[in-house]
Amino acid sequence: MRILGIDPGTRKTGWGVVERRGTRLMAIASGILRVPAKAPLPARLHQLHAGLEEVIGTFEPAAIALEDIFFAKYANAAMKLGHARGVAMLVCAQHDLTVHEFPPALVKRTVTGRGNAPKEQVARLVTAVLGLRETPGEDAADALAAAITCLQAQGKSVRLLKGSRR
Amino acid sequence: MRILGIDPGTRKTGWGVVERRGTRLMAIASGILRVPAKAPLPARLHQLHAGLEEVIGTFEPAAIALEDIFFAKYANAAMKLGHARGVAMLVCAQHDLTVHEFPPALVKRTVTGRGNAPKEQVARLVTAVLGLRETPGEDAADALAAAITCLQAQGKSVRLLKGSRR
Repeated sequence: MRILGIDPGTRKTGWGVVERRGTRLMAIASGILRVPAKAPLPARLHQLHAGLEEVIGTFEPAAIALEDIFFAKYANAAMKLGHARGVAMLVCAQHDLTVHEFPPALVKRTVTGRGNAPKEQVARLVTAVLGLRETPGEDAADALAAAITCLQAQGKSVRLLKGSRR
Repeated sequence: MRILGIDPGTRKTGWGVVERRGTRLMAIASGILRVPAKAPLPARLHQLHAGLEEVIGTFEPAAIALEDIFFAKYANAAMKLGHARGVAMLVCAQHDLTVHEFPPALVKRTVTGRGNAPKEQVARLVTAVLGLRETPGEDAADALAAAITCLQAQGKSVRLLKGSRR
């Protein structure tokens, strides 16, 4: 079972592919799609769409994991984030992939044990759980964390303790 | 010069195509793309994308007019609207069409003379300016109003008074 987690943004979009093999989780790949901050928003969304198309085409995930709608304080920031999130959802629907959404607090709790863990801690624990050599960038770590949460939520128990990695 | 105005939404998206011929404005077509309210959001965005693709393919506009980012009171509503708006912008970029954005107050003022005109008045004035036989639905009227504003903003003067229609 291979899941693509996506952490969308209008400038940087994190992504991470995680696979379950038995009770083990394995990171297949992760990265950050960056688009030029000064380009017009439609052009940035176009690049984001093309980038996600490539990731999906390359790694052929079975489903997608996204953090639930983020209840932003500022409507304007929420609107902008919505643009990127809408494009991410569209790509998934175009590839007939189910989108699973998880509240940010559940994603943090699944990975760190705390629903309000800071971003650095999420990145550190994702690194440990997946046995990565390097700590991924924050956006990629958030995407991997969403994918881990999705696999964990699928019912079969997955060992998330540090000892479970090779 | 033919402009497609779009008023995006996650359930209903208004669209309207307006063309300038000399100093006259002519409505070519308008409508509302409706998607099933109960379908998952990714599926709705997919339908919206396909619908806008069809409108652009059929009417071949030279550019797109959208209302500027709407400073919503509620972040959650803004986020949802952002999803639809992002998909609309994406379709435009995929067709290499420039997106012109206008503040809602400018659109209202261009069509009605008042920046805070109610929606019904916008629909009534759009009907009058374009000499339509029937008043379009509110979302389609808003899209036509955005297209009118775009043509008006292009520099050449356009007669917007009721007397200018045939």
